[in-house]
Amino acid sequence: MTNVEVLFFDVLGTVVDWRGSIAAEAGSFLKRHNASHIDAAAFADAWVGRYDASVEAIRNGQRSFVPLDLLNMENLEACLKEFGLTPSALPRAELENLNLAWHRLEPWPDSVEGLSRLKKRFIVAPLSDGNTRLLVDMAKRAGLPWDTILGADVSRAYKPTPQVYLRACELLGVKPERAMLVAAHDYDLDAARRCGLKTAYVVRANAQDPSMAASVEPLDGWDYMASDLIELAEILKQVSERIPAMNRSGHKI
Amino acid sequence: MTNVEVLFFDVLGTVVDWRGSIAAEAGSFLKRHNASHIDAAAFADAWVGRYDASVEAIRNGQRSFVPLDLLNMENLEACLKEFGLTPSALPRAELENLNLAWHRLEPWPDSVEGLSRLKKRFIVAPLSDGNTRLLVDMAKRAGLPWDTILGADVSRAYKPTPQVYLRACELLGVKPERAMLVAAHDYDLDAARRCGLKTAYVVRANAQDPSMAASVEPLDGWDYMASDLIELAEILKQVSERIPAMNRSGHKI
Repeated sequence: MTNVEVLFFDVLGTVVDWRGSIAAEAGSFLKRHNASHIDAAAFADAWVGRYDASVEAIRNGQRSFVPLDLLNMENLEACLKEFGLTPSALPRAELENLNLAWHRLEPWPDSVEGLSRLKKRFIVAPLSDGNTRLLVDMAKRAGLPWDTILGADVSRAYKPTPQVYLRACELLGVKPERAMLVAAHDYDLDAARRCGLKTAYVVRANAQDPSMAASVEPLDGWDYMASDLIELAEILKQVSERIPAMNRSGHKI
Repeated sequence: MTNVEVLFFDVLGTVVDWRGSIAAEAGSFLKRHNASHIDAAAFADAWVGRYDASVEAIRNGQRSFVPLDLLNMENLEACLKEFGLTPSALPRAELENLNLAWHRLEPWPDSVEGLSRLKKRFIVAPLSDGNTRLLVDMAKRAGLPWDTILGADVSRAYKPTPQVYLRACELLGVKPERAMLVAAHDYDLDAARRCGLKTAYVVRANAQDPSMAASVEPLDGWDYMASDLIELAEILKQVSERIPAMNRSGHKI
């Protein structure tokens, strides 16, 4: 840990509760449009569940990069149809507002305090499939104290494409071994480790990504494991205090 | 102003006092290496004065993009030679540390408070020739409360290349007319205006860029003018309160 300068964070599921937040906004939307018979949690899972397939087309080169806001809107329209609603019959501004629910995801209870503690010792930055504006709006509303924000539209690639992790390290001026990814998803940590980054697994019992559920084998061997971000801050504090402080002026550009 | 969502800031000269900060660190460096006979302010001006020519080679396509940290180091070595010192005779770590003076530039006295006030109403982000890590280190040390940080290494271009302003607007999810550049340099504001951004001129009497002094005709007609960032916050507050609040959910992606 002596040389780690930058902590990157997966956001969707790791820092914020996407399923719960989306379900709450979807519930209110469905009620306003006389569709209370649709289960909001099932609707949210169906919407989030379309995420991986739409991102995969970009990962494998079938489609050029487009930001997550656009994918979310396409998936929202498909999802409304799946549940028997007609997107074109709903006010456009209402659909756009529901799509912006992704800019208003609620942090887990420990996220703001955990990040604030980690920020004292490290550069903290999201490394998310979300686009930059989505992450900026979310951080401003929730008080997430990022040092900077790197959306997928910066590298124009989606995780776990290696370019995402390597471009982030390049922009933060660190060799990969001086950066660590914090995430609640094995596939993300595995990709980061293959790029040379350190890894910290955070247990988010409710953060299972429905789109990833079938595709991931549980892995292990991560450098650190914590039950939340406050515990991670405590673990890294203890590790750092047992060894000399990192040389802040020693980073290579 | 009703639709402005994002304020971009020039940093070098506008938010931080580059000449004064560089002179202070250069003075201490020269003293440590038995070169107190060299005037630190003259040395700093010579170092900063090489900035524009080195960036110009990238602007006009003669050279591929490299981050400012690298240009600064090349210019530092040239500058040492100009003042009769031999870079290779000095400890490499000392040169690297002096080059990192650019990561430690001091803010003007009003910058932190002014940005904090503006942040309540707008997304605030630097739009600087500095590389992302340089700007992150500077912000962390000085407490500059950016919402996110966009270094020149994100767009891989230097101002006033239009791509810098347009890529920043794209990443922040705003049309150019919903963004405003705040700067103490006419050439920068002029380029932003040509890209469709709103403009705010901040008077920094000591911020004259020695490398730009001869090349710029004073311009005017900026949307706003202020003597510092606190005054700018007050002006924009008064303007905003006279018209309806901007529609946060109305931004286009």
